[in-house]
Amino acid sequence: MTKYNFNAGPSILPQEVIRQTAEAVLDFNGEGLSILEISHRSKGFQAVLDEAVALMKELLNIPEGYSVLFLGGGASLQFCMVPYNLMEKKAAYLNTGVWAKKALKEAKGFGETVDFSSADANYSFIPKDYSVPQDADYFHITTNNTIYGTEISNAELEAIYQKCGNVPLVADMSSDILSRPIDVQKYALIYGGAQKNIAPAGATFVIVRNDVLGKVSRYIPTMLNYQTHIDGGSMFNTPPVLPIYTAMLNLRWLKENGGVAAAEKRNIAKAALLYKTIDESRIFTGTAQKADRSLMNVCFVMKPEYQHLQDDFMRFATERGMVGIKGHRSVGGFRASLYNAMTIEGVQALCDCMKEFETDVIKG
Amino acid sequence: MTKYNFNAGPSILPQEVIRQTAEAVLDFNGEGLSILEISHRSKGFQAVLDEAVALMKELLNIPEGYSVLFLGGGASLQFCMVPYNLMEKKAAYLNTGVWAKKALKEAKGFGETVDFSSADANYSFIPKDYSVPQDADYFHITTNNTIYGTEISNAELEAIYQKCGNVPLVADMSSDILSRPIDVQKYALIYGGAQKNIAPAGATFVIVRNDVLGKVSRYIPTMLNYQTHIDGGSMFNTPPVLPIYTAMLNLRWLKENGGVAAAEKRNIAKAALLYKTIDESRIFTGTAQKADRSLMNVCFVMKPEYQHLQDDFMRFATERGMVGIKGHRSVGGFRASLYNAMTIEGVQALCDCMKEFETDVIKG
Repeated sequence: MTKYNFNAGPSILPQEVIRQTAEAVLDFNGEGLSILEISHRSKGFQAVLDEAVALMKELLNIPEGYSVLFLGGGASLQFCMVPYNLMEKKAAYLNTGVWAKKALKEAKGFGETVDFSSADANYSFIPKDYSVPQDADYFHITTNNTIYGTEISNAELEAIYQKCGNVPLVADMSSDILSRPIDVQKYALIYGGAQKNIAPAGATFVIVRNDVLGKVSRYIPTMLNYQTHIDGGSMFNTPPVLPIYTAMLNLRWLKENGGVAAAEKRNIAKAALLYKTIDESRIFTGTAQKADRSLMNVCFVMKPEYQHLQDDFMRFATERGMVGIKGHRSVGGFRASLYNAMTIEGVQALCDCMKEFETDVIKG
Repeated sequence: MTKYNFNAGPSILPQEVIRQTAEAVLDFNGEGLSILEISHRSKGFQAVLDEAVALMKELLNIPEGYSVLFLGGGASLQFCMVPYNLMEKKAAYLNTGVWAKKALKEAKGFGETVDFSSADANYSFIPKDYSVPQDADYFHITTNNTIYGTEISNAELEAIYQKCGNVPLVADMSSDILSRPIDVQKYALIYGGAQKNIAPAGATFVIVRNDVLGKVSRYIPTMLNYQTHIDGGSMFNTPPVLPIYTAMLNLRWLKENGGVAAAEKRNIAKAALLYKTIDESRIFTGTAQKADRSLMNVCFVMKPEYQHLQDDFMRFATERGMVGIKGHRSVGGFRASLYNAMTIEGVQALCDCMKEFETDVIKG
């Protein structure tokens, strides 16, 4: 049976990227060694890292003056690295979900924080009615909220650029990087776990404007200092070799498939198809406010009168090859993640499955 | 041509572990998904992590009261996590090489340090004539020095346990973990990059006695706090899934091959073979003092009168399938790393190659 992988992350990767990774595990570059056992200081791996960085710069149109890093530790480590490197006294956060809240929590350990939140509405929308304090060292946003299925739209991002004025903007883009074009020059720092649109688990990406660093007065441990990793070209210490290799393959795949603009078109079409199915359904309903719906993570629940059918639908969908559609416990219901590698056919299969179930229920 | 992988790390892994990893990249557990795209919260991966932890406990005979963690970030991140979590005022370090010195450097950011070093002798031996200050919060050692080819022998480890008295002992065992039995109960904390005897690059292991934590007064960022990862069972955030999977396979392999005691016997035999070749050679000579020679990394150079043949030997060896035998720039010459997965046949091939070259030189 065909499996459709809607996991929220680690998540679906293109089949050819998976195949190429398996080949390199057996024999990297025809050199007779596995990618698992080559030196990260070898010419072969240096070429992989260089290509991955170059592809990130090309695909995201990253201007001069920015560094692209691939590190270990996950976005959660970035939650403390950001204030460590950028926060002197005060930072502002847009608190739009569990991950944004965790990022905010780390900043509290370093100074004064201000935050704007939709926590009272179970993070079902992106707050818009606030001002960014102009004395903040930076303003931190989470562009897509995997758990709640909300995303800061392109229009709202423009509004945020205006709100920031001269305050440096920092973004956790773990779950929507490379899903749409972004205006990188508007950001001081962009980071994320790579295990959604870039790579398997184990790598973290950072895009940082070099001139925002070196301005805080505190002592920064070597590994937590972005400058260490810029100076070391992401190889101050042993990097996560295989995850970076797969990232490079996946970035190649994205380029061959039209780059980020083409990905955005596909992502809009995929999400539109699924949201239409939800909105036309008599038994399912979406959880996020429409203006802030995510293109990456589509969250939906059973309408109150059909709540008792939740487990039935999960079984029904699983029997038809749907994987990873259980919603996060803080929202409940279902979540289908539609990252770049998810095909429109996969989304159609889920929609068909939802409709078939609904017909059975209504008939029954 | 058969390749013999003497890389210092990332380094050789057993062929069956490589093959099994490649299979899981294509299809994990016959579930129809790649190990690269499964959820770390899936039952399948939880079983992998649980087995890896259980095997570490079994193979190293880890007593009750210790936690075993698999994290990201590398040993270099541990260099600051150790003082963050354990150092209130003062720490002592045995400075036996580049990595020990880097660990020491991070501690200096947190308080007073004392260290004992063989830096003046280019780290060619393990210092033995020192006392551990009894008011230190911990004493930190690096049990094997990859770059210099020195290792703290089992006998010297016993002497260190005596020197420590009640001072907690912390060890970076990146490059000799699982190569010999260790008396874990003598340690407060053991850590290391896993990319030598355990896994491919991207995972870090930590073995920590639970009761040494929670005693410092400083604020610890969430991700840098060992307690976070103990409470989260190494899954506070997304762990490096594939490196942990391969670690589990490799730990299984080690168990099937007699465990750590049997590995030590093989490692002693392999190192003895290569050191004998070096000691009997008219053109090669070892760099580390004999009492402190490493079983894992064998460093040797050309004798002064044969220095000019260095590049010739490198070419000669490369043509015969030897990989990764270039010495680190701070020692020069050659280094052959003989981790658990290196076979005695591989070492014999290197010895034969050295002898053949020597015969050619002497004849010529």
